[in-house]
Amino acid sequence: MNTVPFQTVYKSLQALPYIRCIGESWPMAKERAYFEAITLKEHGGLCPDHVPEVYHFDSSMCLIGMRYIEPPHIILRKGLIAGIEYPLLAEHVSDYMAKTLFYTSLLYLTTTDHKSAVAKYCGNVEMCRLTEQVVFSDPYKVSEHNHWTSPYLDSDAGAVREDNLLKLEIAELKSKFCERAQALIHGDLHTGSIMVTGDSTQVIDPEFGFYGPMGFDIGAFVGNLILAYFAQDGHAVDGNDRKHYKVWILRTITETWNLFYKKFTALWDEHKDGPGEAYLPAIYNNPDVQLLVKQKYMKELFHDTLGFGAAKMIRRIVGVAHVADFESIKEAKKRADCERKALNFAKNLLKGRRNFQSISEVVSAMEKLD
Amino acid sequence: MNTVPFQTVYKSLQALPYIRCIGESWPMAKERAYFEAITLKEHGGLCPDHVPEVYHFDSSMCLIGMRYIEPPHIILRKGLIAGIEYPLLAEHVSDYMAKTLFYTSLLYLTTTDHKSAVAKYCGNVEMCRLTEQVVFSDPYKVSEHNHWTSPYLDSDAGAVREDNLLKLEIAELKSKFCERAQALIHGDLHTGSIMVTGDSTQVIDPEFGFYGPMGFDIGAFVGNLILAYFAQDGHAVDGNDRKHYKVWILRTITETWNLFYKKFTALWDEHKDGPGEAYLPAIYNNPDVQLLVKQKYMKELFHDTLGFGAAKMIRRIVGVAHVADFESIKEAKKRADCERKALNFAKNLLKGRRNFQSISEVVSAMEKLD
Repeated sequence: MNTVPFQTVYKSLQALPYIRCIGESWPMAKERAYFEAITLKEHGGLCPDHVPEVYHFDSSMCLIGMRYIEPPHIILRKGLIAGIEYPLLAEHVSDYMAKTLFYTSLLYLTTTDHKSAVAKYCGNVEMCRLTEQVVFSDPYKVSEHNHWTSPYLDSDAGAVREDNLLKLEIAELKSKFCERAQALIHGDLHTGSIMVTGDSTQVIDPEFGFYGPMGFDIGAFVGNLILAYFAQDGHAVDGNDRKHYKVWILRTITETWNLFYKKFTALWDEHKDGPGEAYLPAIYNNPDVQLLVKQKYMKELFHDTLGFGAAKMIRRIVGVAHVADFESIKEAKKRADCERKALNFAKNLLKGRRNFQSISEVVSAMEKLD
Repeated sequence: MNTVPFQTVYKSLQALPYIRCIGESWPMAKERAYFEAITLKEHGGLCPDHVPEVYHFDSSMCLIGMRYIEPPHIILRKGLIAGIEYPLLAEHVSDYMAKTLFYTSLLYLTTTDHKSAVAKYCGNVEMCRLTEQVVFSDPYKVSEHNHWTSPYLDSDAGAVREDNLLKLEIAELKSKFCERAQALIHGDLHTGSIMVTGDSTQVIDPEFGFYGPMGFDIGAFVGNLILAYFAQDGHAVDGNDRKHYKVWILRTITETWNLFYKKFTALWDEHKDGPGEAYLPAIYNNPDVQLLVKQKYMKELFHDTLGFGAAKMIRRIVGVAHVADFESIKEAKKRADCERKALNFAKNLLKGRRNFQSISEVVSAMEKLD
């Protein structure tokens, strides 16, 4: 949710009965405030350094009283548009993702605790349906909500709607999103849901929180960094061609995945004797099989990440809600050129994600296309 | 649940607070009667021809009043041991599986209805945990509950516990079982959960019902037919070598999958305009992409079926609860020979399931091993 300052140390968020960025024509259940509050509390307990504290939740008013994230914190997306480097970003976000995803998965939970948590978050169905529509459906069909930089991208948008292999892949990801209760995910972890300074990173707005596939969160973050990368040429000005900054974005993408991998598997090692019930110690605690299951799990998660990341990119270019990274490029032709590169990269990533074995291969492919 | 006759047209089932086949040492929540009752009602509404009607459920007594499935109905497993052919079995069971699985999946349901049903069945966690233990865990580790035809299968049972690739595959299936809410499955669809005559087939005992992977049901049935096949040599007597009967079992396996495929995809065609939200008509209703998504969906379901089927076979040979197909072979050496063939086939199937493109290839592999 968007936030309204309350006083200097508190912030109050109140859910509106419609989607703010679209208006009253698209109603939205106020209950999302409840799921935002409980996800903030759950994730905050697991990763207090990067999740603002909730002081109070009033369900009748749909009101959350929480830590006021003070200046100079700004929304990460704005920082990426301004060309500001955040040297600790990959470290912090990988920390948040590793902890929140690991500790809410069956790698740490018993199946009893997992199933009861899954049931609780099934109530957040309206927010899931919004994601289903805007991420997995609308971009692939004619929809009144879709728009793009016209006329430049008219044929590109049309090509998305005619691409059968793309539709095949997006269907697989939608099915994972709807059916696979892997962990308590944030559900909307783009660069507009993160507030930053040079040494602080705070993840906000988990109103889409539910038990879904981990790759949806990691992909949202990585996909939005890729969007930021392809938008940089549109922000280049005399004296600052953004080349150096683009290198930093690529490094941040690489470090995010690699640090996530390291931290997530370290948590797995630390808790390999329980209480998680996915891999019982009596079966999986010999080093050979430990390595095999970990490699297999992380490989699937990597490919999920790339797939969901690509899906989140596509929807930001030809779907309903666009991102300031591109929207702030005033010249339409220039904006369309940036968007087309991002769109083509995303389409190839979605269809060919299983061909990538490491994040550095992804980054190389980005550089090649650029 | 095992059943106690009540009167000639009713049957009452009362849940005991422990697992009947093991005894009071293994307690079990009486709430399973509730999930049995609601699954019977749900599946019965979708496929009344093959699910007995529930007349009354008393939650305080954990008591179900339901149709008495009258003689000459017998448990299918007993018929398979006796060598009785059921010419309509594949037709009926494929009908039951196609209807119950299709209509409770996102191919037919809205995500709102699906998520609310998923939440309701999350309460059946204790039965899911029993399956997790006896199917996906115990056979792959030392467990006091495990037993096998000793000493003949000692090294075979040991080999299962040392097979890292097998453990890798069973972990993937366990994760699907725990995390993937694909459809309302029966959860225990072996040949002991089906009552038959020459022209009637009734599916009983869905106390394990929950939203899980469809392949778990189809695999349970197919896997238990494969067990029945490999047990036949142990039932051969002078004058009846069971060769003809084995051909019938193979044909039934082939027909079950092929008829299921046909009926399930026919339901999909029939309802391709909704209300199911997995494949929206505006995106998927051109013939090319329809075919592609269907092929992909059914291929994954086929491989799930083989994987879960193999897992259900393995647990019946080296796990806690065995099947009468083998147990009724009195001579231990002969029984062990039958079981070893089935076990080896199941291990290869679990590890190599993705190499099979059709059910006839599976049947050929069975004949080759035999």
